[in-house]
Amino acid sequence: MDRLILHEDPRSGNCFKIRLTAALLSLPLERVQYDIMQGETRTAEFIGRINANGRIPVLQVGERFLPESNAACWYLAEGSALIPRDRFTRADMLRWMFFEQYNHEPNIATLRFWLHFVGEDNLTELQRAQLPAKRMAGEEALGVMEQHLAERPWFAGDAASLADISLYAYTHVCEAGGFRLRRYPHVQAWLRRVEALPGYVAMD
Amino acid sequence: MDRLILHEDPRSGNCFKIRLTAALLSLPLERVQYDIMQGETRTAEFIGRINANGRIPVLQVGERFLPESNAACWYLAEGSALIPRDRFTRADMLRWMFFEQYNHEPNIATLRFWLHFVGEDNLTELQRAQLPAKRMAGEEALGVMEQHLAERPWFAGDAASLADISLYAYTHVCEAGGFRLRRYPHVQAWLRRVEALPGYVAMD
Repeated sequence: MDRLILHEDPRSGNCFKIRLTAALLSLPLERVQYDIMQGETRTAEFIGRINANGRIPVLQVGERFLPESNAACWYLAEGSALIPRDRFTRADMLRWMFFEQYNHEPNIATLRFWLHFVGEDNLTELQRAQLPAKRMAGEEALGVMEQHLAERPWFAGDAASLADISLYAYTHVCEAGGFRLRRYPHVQAWLRRVEALPGYVAMD
Repeated sequence: MDRLILHEDPRSGNCFKIRLTAALLSLPLERVQYDIMQGETRTAEFIGRINANGRIPVLQVGERFLPESNAACWYLAEGSALIPRDRFTRADMLRWMFFEQYNHEPNIATLRFWLHFVGEDNLTELQRAQLPAKRMAGEEALGVMEQHLAERPWFAGDAASLADISLYAYTHVCEAGGFRLRRYPHVQAWLRRVEALPGYVAMD
């Protein structure tokens, strides 16, 4: 495989997904760090060469660049046990990864970013006005996860897959955004299962 | 393949993606329609049996249910030319599908829904306050697409893929959300290329 370089901010759960996938697969991954709070992914050099969308993570594969955390995880995991072999289960795994980017991340990761890193006092008026809706939508996403995990150990199929890695990233640090994991016991038990996977690494 | 049933609201671009994918692949697809404006996907029966997340589209495959539009497209297209054979290009296709759900749909589809279906006068104060930010983010997404298409005919690799279907769905009706396609000539030319694909069907 080509040389793999992760362009990341180590505080980002989206970046951590890729690092965790590589670790579970024992793939060597170099890391280049940026401070998103300082706009380091919005420079002309970054936008021109690495990602026109001005965001991390980006997985560099040789001289090619792959943005979007879940796509990068997919690239790393193809052919491994982290992607189910059954056609429906594989699509169902992707279903949870799209759920993660649509229903989970914009609420749970955003509240963590706003409340833990930016600070409530520094929010704009518009951000502050969105807090209740994002709180409710985040609780709803955790509720869907809780219900799903009440009946099965993993999100797709009967083993850990990229769906679990993707949803783990921001769920395990959701309390920094004001969510309370004790309300979601099945989610908590599943977090422990992810952390028991051979090769697991913690977020920085 | 099992019997395929699309649970949909025909006004939804997310539902249309699945119908277009099936049409391009000549797959028979039954359709069951719901009116999301009337809360028909939030009933106990829908949430209990079809999608705990209370959303359409859901692709029913025999007796199994697959939510999330892009996951359903993936299921239908596996093994076809709509998914690139090259590993990096396949991941790059998924990259654009995650971009679609994160950067494109929440802005471009939401403004269409709010302005065209709900009506500006009926928006909540919070929705109204979000209009400028969603407008800017939507233009930014269209700008990223325009720049990408300035140098290549399709989003991933050298042929139409699910990335194009996914991004086509809400882009081709973005003017209903107040976006102006004439500002994006490369995007316009690409819309025409999608519409020239053999088997293309129009949105209802």
